[in-house]
Amino acid sequence: MTSGGEYGGRRETIARGLAQLDMDALLVSHLPNIRYLTGFTGSNALLLVTRLDSFLFTDPRYDLQARRETSCRVTIARHPILAAAAKLIARRRFRSVGVDPARLTMATHGFLKEKLPTCELKPVADLVEALRMVKSGAEIDRIRRSVTTNSKALAQALRRFKPAMRESDLAAEIDYQMRRLGAEQPSFETIVASGARAALPHARPGNAAIEANQLLLIDMGATQDGYTSDMTRTVGVGRVPTEWRRRYQAVLEAQLAAIDAVRPGVPASLPDRAARGVLTRHGLEKTFTHSTGHGLGLEIHEAPRLGRKEKIRLQAGMVITIEPGIYLEGKGGIRIEDTVLVTAGGCEVLTPTSKDLAVL
Amino acid sequence: MTSGGEYGGRRETIARGLAQLDMDALLVSHLPNIRYLTGFTGSNALLLVTRLDSFLFTDPRYDLQARRETSCRVTIARHPILAAAAKLIARRRFRSVGVDPARLTMATHGFLKEKLPTCELKPVADLVEALRMVKSGAEIDRIRRSVTTNSKALAQALRRFKPAMRESDLAAEIDYQMRRLGAEQPSFETIVASGARAALPHARPGNAAIEANQLLLIDMGATQDGYTSDMTRTVGVGRVPTEWRRRYQAVLEAQLAAIDAVRPGVPASLPDRAARGVLTRHGLEKTFTHSTGHGLGLEIHEAPRLGRKEKIRLQAGMVITIEPGIYLEGKGGIRIEDTVLVTAGGCEVLTPTSKDLAVL
Repeated sequence: MTSGGEYGGRRETIARGLAQLDMDALLVSHLPNIRYLTGFTGSNALLLVTRLDSFLFTDPRYDLQARRETSCRVTIARHPILAAAAKLIARRRFRSVGVDPARLTMATHGFLKEKLPTCELKPVADLVEALRMVKSGAEIDRIRRSVTTNSKALAQALRRFKPAMRESDLAAEIDYQMRRLGAEQPSFETIVASGARAALPHARPGNAAIEANQLLLIDMGATQDGYTSDMTRTVGVGRVPTEWRRRYQAVLEAQLAAIDAVRPGVPASLPDRAARGVLTRHGLEKTFTHSTGHGLGLEIHEAPRLGRKEKIRLQAGMVITIEPGIYLEGKGGIRIEDTVLVTAGGCEVLTPTSKDLAVL
Repeated sequence: MTSGGEYGGRRETIARGLAQLDMDALLVSHLPNIRYLTGFTGSNALLLVTRLDSFLFTDPRYDLQARRETSCRVTIARHPILAAAAKLIARRRFRSVGVDPARLTMATHGFLKEKLPTCELKPVADLVEALRMVKSGAEIDRIRRSVTTNSKALAQALRRFKPAMRESDLAAEIDYQMRRLGAEQPSFETIVASGARAALPHARPGNAAIEANQLLLIDMGATQDGYTSDMTRTVGVGRVPTEWRRRYQAVLEAQLAAIDAVRPGVPASLPDRAARGVLTRHGLEKTFTHSTGHGLGLEIHEAPRLGRKEKIRLQAGMVITIEPGIYLEGKGGIRIEDTVLVTAGGCEVLTPTSKDLAVL
């Protein structure tokens, strides 16, 4: 085991877990997990963490890059890399190798069983995900940078807003500003939905012009140095009808109540309950059709989920979204979302963008 | 079965296949396959195609969208949608349901086996992928538009090139132009790699300035109306050293030879062999470290693969990339790539961008 460093330390934690679980190695196939454990950013890899060592398998496209980015032992395999990993497991005569049933396909499992008849493939779920759920200081720093980029990009893009601009052009502007500010890419397809289209919680930006006197929903995230961020703001264009101003205040109240409920030790369902409670008082509970939030980090959706029935407890170091929303078919929608860090004393809202109803 | 239409027709083809394979239904979990069969563009869905009907399962975020986009019977399930699909299979007393082993995880398979003890889960690989490999006229039209957008975006971005611009800023400019021209998003993370960095076939754009008197490799694709495109151009910045001009001509010769080998009925390995033959004559064969191309469509990497050992035969209607490249560690790299349609008479290079060595 190459010791020390951000990545080496994580692999050591996994290696210690192997002994406890009575396994010779863990086969990691999910790319964000591989990046978390090695720093490798390529698009094709397998990682085998043994008790004493780590082996990264990738293809010739990533030869130089793998050696540069990681301290693992690198095997460059010609298509398919799975065969190379199986060969190593056979050569080492491993008797028990952990695999993640939520990531491994039936085909891969079948191939490994055929090539490794004497090796037990032990299903172990979420071993790496459990580590990833609580962020290190270095990870929180990266998320802070990504959140800052995201908020700056929104401000810069909105400065370029023009009446009757197309949704898709504003989305392009947002993504461009992110990139100029240092993001590699948007964390997901940027949502810009105006008027009745905002009633689709995951609307794709369309070619329609953004008309005046209605609300405009923008949901965006910047991936920077591998780490994601997530923010939704709903802003007014022109004169915002009074009923929509009232609804906006209700969603904001729900969002603040949910944030207020975030602290270590409480179940992940508590913020959801708080948001739903506020919306119920406003008679809007049926229009809140998704859960209140989710973890994020190397992926835009990570554990924990902040749903109605989640039992997992929040811990300091988790980074989550708080994003209640209401959706009125044929009429419009409102969502307000921040990226939030759970701290020892409660939480810190990382997103710096104001939540007062802005009007363009 | 809702009949007719682009999507209904495809589902009917699958339904006919079910009878032949002696299955009651096919469970489709891969999102591009679901989009291909239904038109649904959301990020969470399962599709069950039975002999007479099609059922789409998704979550409340996509309620309106699913009903708008598809002619399937839509079930809005609260988390997880897999349980809803299993319930329907149980209620219908299906005895044999096809699943794709390359897409289904062990966890999903385990869940279904537990919930459906009397139903056989039959592994059927690539049933939808086989259909997707040969594109319809409507699909080819969409790919043409995406290819055109991609080429226009490169031209517009290069017009904005300035000496000592950062790789990441040029990449941002490219992505912005794509979006302005109607693309939803880049088909993959745009590659802009200058000088020695181009020796990494999949380099990420860095913060380094693009220096003069060397080559600049740009690999980009635009996803428009769901369909991808893929193009690589290597251009000169300032004065291009003679040895690199010579190498450029060798790669171009290899690329043209590979295109020349594209026609219906030949094995997918033939264009690869042609490209490799040319590079061997130039003493560059060891620096060509990947395969010659791949299919594309709703995904940027689809069947067929154009590798050394591929036995599958090209067919009219396939859309593939032709992209030989050479990579010299510590020095630089060159790749030239077009998107190519296999036609009855041979092939049509869809990418309109010139391959004469451009110099910025």
